[in-house]
Amino acid sequence: MLAPEDYMRRALELAERGLYTTTPNPRVGCVIVDEAGEIIGEGWTQPAGQNHAEVQALIDAVQRGKSVVGATAYVTLEPCSHFGRTPPCCDALSSAGISRVVAAMEDPNPLVSGKGFERLAAAGIAVSSGLLEEPARALNEGFISRIVRGRPFVRLKIAASLDGKTALANGVSKWITGDAARADAHHWRARSCAVLTGSGTVLADNPSMNVRAVATPRQPRRIVLDSQLRTPADANILRGGNTLIVTASNNTKRRLELETAGAEILHLPSQAGHVDIEALLPILGKNTNELLVEAGAELNAAFMQSGLVDEYLLYLAPTFLGDPARGLAMLPAFGKLEERIALHFQAFEQIGEDLRVLARPA
Amino acid sequence: MLAPEDYMRRALELAERGLYTTTPNPRVGCVIVDEAGEIIGEGWTQPAGQNHAEVQALIDAVQRGKSVVGATAYVTLEPCSHFGRTPPCCDALSSAGISRVVAAMEDPNPLVSGKGFERLAAAGIAVSSGLLEEPARALNEGFISRIVRGRPFVRLKIAASLDGKTALANGVSKWITGDAARADAHHWRARSCAVLTGSGTVLADNPSMNVRAVATPRQPRRIVLDSQLRTPADANILRGGNTLIVTASNNTKRRLELETAGAEILHLPSQAGHVDIEALLPILGKNTNELLVEAGAELNAAFMQSGLVDEYLLYLAPTFLGDPARGLAMLPAFGKLEERIALHFQAFEQIGEDLRVLARPA
Repeated sequence: MLAPEDYMRRALELAERGLYTTTPNPRVGCVIVDEAGEIIGEGWTQPAGQNHAEVQALIDAVQRGKSVVGATAYVTLEPCSHFGRTPPCCDALSSAGISRVVAAMEDPNPLVSGKGFERLAAAGIAVSSGLLEEPARALNEGFISRIVRGRPFVRLKIAASLDGKTALANGVSKWITGDAARADAHHWRARSCAVLTGSGTVLADNPSMNVRAVATPRQPRRIVLDSQLRTPADANILRGGNTLIVTASNNTKRRLELETAGAEILHLPSQAGHVDIEALLPILGKNTNELLVEAGAELNAAFMQSGLVDEYLLYLAPTFLGDPARGLAMLPAFGKLEERIALHFQAFEQIGEDLRVLARPA
Repeated sequence: MLAPEDYMRRALELAERGLYTTTPNPRVGCVIVDEAGEIIGEGWTQPAGQNHAEVQALIDAVQRGKSVVGATAYVTLEPCSHFGRTPPCCDALSSAGISRVVAAMEDPNPLVSGKGFERLAAAGIAVSSGLLEEPARALNEGFISRIVRGRPFVRLKIAASLDGKTALANGVSKWITGDAARADAHHWRARSCAVLTGSGTVLADNPSMNVRAVATPRQPRRIVLDSQLRTPADANILRGGNTLIVTASNNTKRRLELETAGAEILHLPSQAGHVDIEALLPILGKNTNELLVEAGAELNAAFMQSGLVDEYLLYLAPTFLGDPARGLAMLPAFGKLEERIALHFQAFEQIGEDLRVLARPA
């Protein structure tokens, strides 16, 4: 007989299996435990439109030939009580004969929060919530941000030298960080709903911005901030579709060209000649949990100064490139130290030859 | 009965107690173990001119009322066989009746290496060497560098923001790293034989460059590279004496002023208007094990490019100061990535709010 924390920890492990795939739904795991303490069913949320974790765990128990009558379901998020693309998990749990539900956290949506528990209780099921809530929330920060703040959780990725440079003065920038760091960065792409860059990066590097170094059945949406519609119709970032170009331009000819190349175009009012990222984020908030920004020095600075960055993902290469080299962010000259971009460190890890730093706004 | 490694580990712990004080002698520890495996004497090297670790351990045994006849001495460095400021430790060990000596490493000086063991063996003492040699060498890298290479182990300390800046464009630089990082930096000063800076830093910040944040009975020597003898006679760095000014200037008046203020002056030929650091290091190598460089962007760059830096001690503050702010090293514009300063990381640790990074040349 394990402790309740152990079952929930297992449910969190299962939830993590949906890290690359559940978007825009949350990553949820479920463990069904019989009265003897044996795990008789396990499941995690499938890609949007398919089964939620609870239903997967019930199916797993059926496939194992186990009865779930009287069993306890450990689930990392309050079961849903509404009909979405799938029927309510609450009903599936009660119909199956589950007698107790232990959740890690309530639904973050204030409009439905607690409704799942009410519906379960009305069906005679004992409910409790808050077990390992912190890691459960951490796993779905993007989902929570979208539901609660109406905008994505924004992660800004930068790979630079120890003196904060991303390329030599002449633009040479290949291999500043190593293979392992680049593969690690693809993991963070894979877990994001969308990856955002600027047209400057598209023109300079012609990146595809897709996930290659880790295996994933889902590619994140690609977003290009391109106030002037400068993206070439044959840019790598348009290949394979699922690319949104956000512009402030009214150039209908270029718009048609890019739409013909498969891009979706979003027109937004400009802010001093640039796409207004503050106006963009609530729009992305409709279907984007985690947004990964991988941009150049200008857009990095705009995000840093907007106050919209939730997490900095930095890869520092063990090298100095020198002051004349290109800086990671085109920030202005601050006159006082109080104006600086102030963070606090969250975690460090050596990734191959490089150092990965996670930091958040102070 | 402990294992030989345990006794040697204890001897290394004792050796570390001399971290701030033994210079220019090595940090050495000694543990005397009787035939029953009991530790009956412990010692570590005292400040130069006083007892070495072996003699201290023998005295400790006497004070505990223990006989060392037939005992084993674990010592982190081959005992000395020559008369220096103290008589040879070999003779002290054999006179006392020690029957076996286990050393972590041989004397790094090729002229005397193995002579201690020979002298011990000639006195009928069983000797062996190489137990925990790696940590023993790490503890005395500075001493080994001075003896083997004839120059100090050079550690370059830099405190900067995540974008490699040490001050705002207007020069404001206070409190970029926090209290804990500054205290930690004083630990690295305290273990150094000498701390080196440039006259630019002296003029800009008027630092004392002494150890304040940690307790030490010894202050490191202070060295100012001052090609033009610009150091003011009332500079804080001259207070308390033990300051060397290295210059390429022949200005006798200024030299007399500074000597009157207590400074020692060393004249070296200039190298493109600057003190030639390559010529300086062998001179410092006479009595400097570890040299800590705490300088400004110009001297940092000179050291980085000289190939003379053995270790980088970086404190990274969780902040971005922006590209117009002052960079940590005035390196030239490299045309190829191969020209960059390439390191590899050794260790990371969060110190208060900041990140401490140790790195070495790749």
